[in-house]
Amino acid sequence: MSKIAVVALGGNALLRGNQAGTIEEQEQNTTETLENLVYLIKEGYNLVISHGNGPQVGNILMRNDAGESMYGIPQMPLDICVADSQGGIGYMIERMLRNVLQKHGIDKEVCCLETPVIVNHDDPAFKNPTKRVGRSYNKKQADELASQKNWIFKEEIKDTGSGWRRVVPSPRPIGILNIKVINQLVRQGIIVIAAGGGGVPVYIDAEKNVRPTEAVIDKDLASSLMAAEIKADEFYILTDVPYVYINYKKPGEKKLEFINHADTVKYLNEGMFGEGNMAPKIRACLNFIENGGSKSVITESTKLEDKSYGTKITMEYED
Amino acid sequence: MSKIAVVALGGNALLRGNQAGTIEEQEQNTTETLENLVYLIKEGYNLVISHGNGPQVGNILMRNDAGESMYGIPQMPLDICVADSQGGIGYMIERMLRNVLQKHGIDKEVCCLETPVIVNHDDPAFKNPTKRVGRSYNKKQADELASQKNWIFKEEIKDTGSGWRRVVPSPRPIGILNIKVINQLVRQGIIVIAAGGGGVPVYIDAEKNVRPTEAVIDKDLASSLMAAEIKADEFYILTDVPYVYINYKKPGEKKLEFINHADTVKYLNEGMFGEGNMAPKIRACLNFIENGGSKSVITESTKLEDKSYGTKITMEYED
Repeated sequence: MSKIAVVALGGNALLRGNQAGTIEEQEQNTTETLENLVYLIKEGYNLVISHGNGPQVGNILMRNDAGESMYGIPQMPLDICVADSQGGIGYMIERMLRNVLQKHGIDKEVCCLETPVIVNHDDPAFKNPTKRVGRSYNKKQADELASQKNWIFKEEIKDTGSGWRRVVPSPRPIGILNIKVINQLVRQGIIVIAAGGGGVPVYIDAEKNVRPTEAVIDKDLASSLMAAEIKADEFYILTDVPYVYINYKKPGEKKLEFINHADTVKYLNEGMFGEGNMAPKIRACLNFIENGGSKSVITESTKLEDKSYGTKITMEYED
Repeated sequence: MSKIAVVALGGNALLRGNQAGTIEEQEQNTTETLENLVYLIKEGYNLVISHGNGPQVGNILMRNDAGESMYGIPQMPLDICVADSQGGIGYMIERMLRNVLQKHGIDKEVCCLETPVIVNHDDPAFKNPTKRVGRSYNKKQADELASQKNWIFKEEIKDTGSGWRRVVPSPRPIGILNIKVINQLVRQGIIVIAAGGGGVPVYIDAEKNVRPTEAVIDKDLASSLMAAEIKADEFYILTDVPYVYINYKKPGEKKLEFINHADTVKYLNEGMFGEGNMAPKIRACLNFIENGGSKSVITESTKLEDKSYGTKITMEYED
C-alpha cells in the first residue's frame, strides 16, 4: 500500500523575501519547489500539499485597505481574505503541479480544496492577539480604525521607523472541517492541495453553527493536525534550511539529522529553537508523531531527493 | 439511485444590485438562497452548486488597481483574481450551507473545489473581447494601461457619463479540469461547490501544459458543461424571475412553463430572449439537454419548493 505524506510548503517555496510578489515570480518559485516533490511521488507517496500565504494574504489585506480608501469598496473580513488566498495560491500550485507531472510523464489527478479549520473560541490566544497583519498606520489612523472596526493595534518597533499594525490572535487548530474528503481523495492517489495558509479560521458555536473568526492559524500546526487526522505516515515541513540546528550560529552549533521525541522536547524546552522561526515548526513535528505519525522531517525542498539531508524526528531512535 | 442536479446560483442569489457588497449582505442573501435548496436535498437530489462572481471579482480587480496605485503592490492577472473569488465565495457558500443543513437536521458533507475551466485558445472570442471588467478610466489612463499591460479598452456610453473600461474575451468552455473529482464526490452524496464564476480560465498548449488566460467564462455555460460531463439528471439556473417569457414586457407577453428543444431554438433564433440576459441562460439550458441531460429549469430560488413554478426545457414535450 502507498504511503501518505503531508508536505507543508514554507513561505519562500512560493515567494522569496526580496521579491516584489509578481505572479511570474510566484509561478517560477512554485515550479522549482514542486519539481522536488516529484521524487516523493516517484517513490510512491500519495501527497497532501499545504502552503503558507503570508505575503499573499498580506497583499490582499493591503488591497482591501486601498480599495476602501480609493473607491469605498467594503473591506472583507480576515476569513474571506484567507479564503481568497487559498483560492489564488491553491489554483496556482495546482496548475504548476499539473505541468510538472506532465513534464515527468506522471499521470496523477490534482485538486485544491477550500479548507476551513476549526479553532476553539475560548482559546487563550483570543485574549492576547500577537500576529501582525495588514499595513502599518500612524497613531491617529490606528485609533480611528480601532473604534470603527474593533481592530486591535500594537506599535511596531523597527529599523524602518515605527508605526501601528493590526494584531490578530493565532489560536491552535483543533479540527479540519473537510478532513473526510481530504482523507478519501488522497487515499485514491489524488494529490490534494489543502489547509493553505493554515486554513480559513472558523469556530463551532453552541448551536453547532460554523462561525468565522478574525484570526490566523499557524500553517505548520494546521498541516500537522491534518497529517495526524488522515493518519499520514510522514510529515514534511519544507523551509529555507537543509537541517535544524542546536546552538544555531553560536559556539557548539550542531546540525540535527536524527532526533527522537524526548531529545527534541528537551532542546525545545532549553530554548534551542527560535520562537519566531523554528520552534513552531518543531512543535508541529512533535504534534504529528505524538498523534500516531511515524516521522516528521524538516528540510529544504531542494534536498528532498537525497534522503541523507534533513532533520528527521521520530518517537524513538532507530537501532 | 439518487438523482444529480447542478444548480447555478445567479448574481443576485449572493448580492443584490442595490447593495454595497459588505460580507453581512452577502452572507444573508446566500443563506436565504441556500434555504431554498433544502427542498431539492430533501427530495434526494445530490447537488453540485456553481455560482456567479461578477460583483466580487469586480471588487477584487478594483482592489488590485487601488493596491498598485497606493502601495505599489503588483496586480494579479485575471486567472488569479477569479481563483481568489472562487476561494472567498465558495468558502462563504460552504459555511452558510453547513449551517442551513445543520438547522434542518440534514447530515451531509459539503466541500468547495477550485475549478480551472478549459477554453480553446483559438476561440474566436479572443479576437473580439467584449466583457467589461474592472474600473472605468479616462482616455489618458486607459492609453497608458493599454501600453503598459497590453489591456484592451472600450469606451463606455452610459447615463452616468462616459469612460474607458478594460474588455476581455469570453470564450466558450470546452472542459472542466477537475471533472473526475467533482463527479466522484457528488455521486457519494457530498454537496460540491465548483466552477464558481464560470471557472478559472485556462487553455492547454501544444505541449499539453495548462496555461492561464486573461478571459472570463460565462457561468451558466460552464455550469451546463459541468452538468453534462457528470451526466447530471437536471440543471437549474436560479435567477431573479420565476419564469422565462416570450415578448417580455411587450404585447403578446407569455410565460413559458414547459417548452421543448425545437420551440426553444425557434424562439431563440427569433430574438425572443435578451442577448445581455436570458439568451445565454437559454443556450446553457439547450447545451445541457443536447448533451444528454433530461431537464433544464430556469426560475427564482424562492420558487424551487413549488414545482409548478419555473420554465422547464426538455428535449420533447411530455404527453
